Amino acid sequence: MRRSAGRRRVRCVTDSAEAPVGHPGAPVVGMVGAGQLARMTAQAAAGLGVGFRVLAASAADSAAQVAAGTVVGDHRSLDDLRAFAAGCDVLTFDHEHVAGGHLAALERAGVQVRPPAAALYFTQDKLAMRQRLAGLGVNCPRFTAVGDLAEVKDFAAGTWPVVLKAVSGGYDGRGVWVCATPAEVEQVLEHGIEVIAEEYVSFDRELAVLAARSPHGQGAVYPVVQTVQRDGICREVLAPAPGLSPGLAARAQELALWIAAELGVTGLLAVEMFEIGGGLLVNELAMRPHNCGHWTIEGARTSQFEQHLRAVLDLPLGSPALAAPATVMVNVLGADDGDGDVYDRYIHVMAADPAVKVHMYGKPVRPGRKIGHVTVTGPAGDHVYADHAALADRARRAASYLRWGREDGP
Amino acid sequence: MRRSAGRRRVRCVTDSAEAPVGHPGAPVVGMVGAGQLARMTAQAAAGLGVGFRVLAASAADSAAQVAAGTVVGDHRSLDDLRAFAAGCDVLTFDHEHVAGGHLAALERAGVQVRPPAAALYFTQDKLAMRQRLAGLGVNCPRFTAVGDLAEVKDFAAGTWPVVLKAVSGGYDGRGVWVCATPAEVEQVLEHGIEVIAEEYVSFDRELAVLAARSPHGQGAVYPVVQTVQRDGICREVLAPAPGLSPGLAARAQELALWIAAELGVTGLLAVEMFEIGGGLLVNELAMRPHNCGHWTIEGARTSQFEQHLRAVLDLPLGSPALAAPATVMVNVLGADDGDGDVYDRYIHVMAADPAVKVHMYGKPVRPGRKIGHVTVTGPAGDHVYADHAALADRARRAASYLRWGREDGP
Repeated sequence: MRRSAGRRRVRCVTDSAEAPVGHPGAPVVGMVGAGQLARMTAQAAAGLGVGFRVLAASAADSAAQVAAGTVVGDHRSLDDLRAFAAGCDVLTFDHEHVAGGHLAALERAGVQVRPPAAALYFTQDKLAMRQRLAGLGVNCPRFTAVGDLAEVKDFAAGTWPVVLKAVSGGYDGRGVWVCATPAEVEQVLEHGIEVIAEEYVSFDRELAVLAARSPHGQGAVYPVVQTVQRDGICREVLAPAPGLSPGLAARAQELALWIAAELGVTGLLAVEMFEIGGGLLVNELAMRPHNCGHWTIEGARTSQFEQHLRAVLDLPLGSPALAAPATVMVNVLGADDGDGDVYDRYIHVMAADPAVKVHMYGKPVRPGRKIGHVTVTGPAGDHVYADHAALADRARRAASYLRWGREDGP
Repeated sequence: MRRSAGRRRVRCVTDSAEAPVGHPGAPVVGMVGAGQLARMTAQAAAGLGVGFRVLAASAADSAAQVAAGTVVGDHRSLDDLRAFAAGCDVLTFDHEHVAGGHLAALERAGVQVRPPAAALYFTQDKLAMRQRLAGLGVNCPRFTAVGDLAEVKDFAAGTWPVVLKAVSGGYDGRGVWVCATPAEVEQVLEHGIEVIAEEYVSFDRELAVLAARSPHGQGAVYPVVQTVQRDGICREVLAPAPGLSPGLAARAQELALWIAAELGVTGLLAVEMFEIGGGLLVNELAMRPHNCGHWTIEGARTSQFEQHLRAVLDLPLGSPALAAPATVMVNVLGADDGDGDVYDRYIHVMAADPAVKVHMYGKPVRPGRKIGHVTVTGPAGDHVYADHAALADRARRAASYLRWGREDGP
C-alpha cells in the first residue's frame, strides 16, 4: 500500500506541553538532536516508561516524526538549550555539536548534563582526545598537531599516505582525509581548519567496543564487534567479532571501561579500534548511542538505547549479554534515485526473508546517506565464521534491495 | 533520580499537523485507542518507518504520552472517527469498542478498516461469535442465549457453577461472571444486560494462540503459549506452552489460522483456549495486539505489534519464530498505595536482575490495573519445565516488587 495521494494531513490537537510524560514519578530525559539515534532512544524510553523529549532542528527530523512533545530549536543557541533543559531532568545528546561553552553554562545553571561537558570535550577536540589518551598510555596511531605542509611532511618522513583529521568539525561534511601526496595535504590545508596528522594504519580489521557508565560509577560493556567501513561510513557490524581471541576481547572491553571511567563518561562510550598484529590501537571515541551498537536492539539483552537512558538516569545498567549467538547489522544507504521507492521495496525484502529486521529512519533519501539499517540474528553452530557469513549475506541482500531495488547493488 | 519538583513543563512547538510521518512514501496507520497496546505499536511503527497516529480520549493516555501527532477525540463519535481516518491510509484498533454502525459507515466512505467491520462484529457480540464458531464446527464450551433465571436454570440442569457472559459490554468493568447459585445469576440479570450462559469448564490449563492474516490472505502463527489468569486478569504467559504435545500445538495453530481466514480477519487474531483432557475448547477471540503476545517483543523474531502493522498494511508477514527457547511475561498490576513509588522501585528491580525487561505504560496506578509488564527470556536446557519455572520466578519477583515494593507480594 502506498500513501494515498489525496490523504489529508492529520489534524493533531494534543497540546503536549500539558500532557504528562512517562510513568508517574519518572524523570524526563531531554535529548539534544533528533536524528535516528534519538528516534531509537525514543522507542526505548517508551518501553522503560520514562519521559523523553527531543530538541529538533525541524519537525521533520527523524525523531521528531515519532516522539511526542518534540521541541523545535537550535542547539547552537544557549537560550534554546536553556529553555529545553528547563523541561527535563537530565540533558543528553545524539550528536557532539553543542558548543563546550554552552555545556559549561548549562552545568553552572544546575542542569544535569550527561555526559558532562568535561567528558564531551574529548569528542569535540581530536587533539585533546589524542593527548589525553596518550597521557593515559593508551595505544593510538602516532599523531601530531600540524600547522602547515612542512610539518606534515616532517611527520610523514617520506611514508605516505598520511591521515589528516579536523580537530573539530571539518568541511563538506567530512573530518578525515587520507592524503596520498603532499598535494592532497595542501588541498585540505587551504580550507584553513585546524588539523592533526596521524599515521595511516594498515590494520587487519576494525573493532568497536561499546561501554556504559553511570554517575554512580557502575560500568557495563557489550561484546566486542567487528565493523566494516567504506568511504568513511560504517557499512556493517558483526557481533560478536568473529574469531576474536578471548584475551584480546577482554583487553578491548577493559580498555573501554577504563577510558569511560578516566574521562568521567556518563552514558555510552563507543571506542573504535584497529586490530593490527594481535594488538589494538584506539581510533575514535563517541559518547552517545552509536552505529556500532544498532545490533544490540535484537542481538543483546539490553539495547544500547535503553542502556544509554539507564546510564544517564543513574539506574542500574542492563545486561549487555548476547541475546543471540551471532548478529549482523548492515546500514541502508540512500541511492541516487530519489525519495520515492523505498517503501515499495519493503514488500520484496520482507517476502524474501521474513526474519530480517528492517529499521527505517523516515529520512529523505540522499545518495550515500544512512536512511536505515537491517539486522539478522541467528543461532551459532559449530562454525562461527560460517554463521556470520550466512547472516551477513542475508543482511546485505536486504540492505542492497532497500537501496537499489536489487539484491546485488553496485 | 526522581523527577525534580521544580521542573517546568516542556514547551512543545512542533506542529505535528504539518510534520511528515514515517518514511517518505510510506503509508500512515491510524489506531483508534491509545492504551498500552497502541503505545507498543507506536514503538514498532517507529522501527518500521511507517507513519502512525493514535486517536486518544485524552492527551494523558498511555500512547499519547509517547507518539507524535496524537489526535484527541471520541471513538464513539462518527465525526471524530471520520476526521481521524481522513489523515490515515489504514484504520485499526487497540480495543473493540467502536460501534459496528460506525465501522460500516467508515467502510462505505472508503476507509480501509482493518480488521473489517464484518470480522470485528465477532469480537463485539459474544452470542454471534459462539454461533459462528459452532457453525464452523469449532469446539467451544456449551452455551445458550438466556433471557431469565428459568432459562439459566434449565441450561444448568442442576450442575453449578454456570458462567454468564455479557453479549457486549457488561457493567462495573466486567463482562464475565462465574455464578455458583441461582441467586448469583439473579444479581447479574437484574442489571438488564443481554447475556449468554456457558458451561463452567474445569480446564487443565489455559492456552492462547496468536495468528496474523493480511488482506492478501497470507497467514502467520506464533507458537502456542500458556496463560495464567487470576480474577479474570491475565497474570502470566509462558512461551512456548511448557510440555504441550506437538500434535495439540499444531492443531491449536491450525485452528487459529483457520478461524482468522473464515472470519476474514486482517491483522492479529488472538484465540484463547482451554486445554482439557487432551482436547481444546475455544474461549475468547480478540482482533488486535493482545496481552498473550507481549512476550513476542523479546521472545519472537517479530513482535506482535510489528506483525499487526505488517498485516494491516498488507506487507509480507514477519517470522513468528522463537528468538529464545523460553520466555516468561508477567503483568505488573497497580497496588493500593497510589502513584508515587513505581519509578523508585526500578532501582531495586534492575539491580537485582539486569536481564529482566521492564515495560511500563505510563498509566496512573489503580489497584489491580495493568500498568506494565516484565519479560525474562532464557536459553532452554535439557529440562524445559525447569527453565520456565526459573524464568517465571525471576519475572514474578520483578513484577511483585514493582507492584508492592517487595519480591513476595501478597
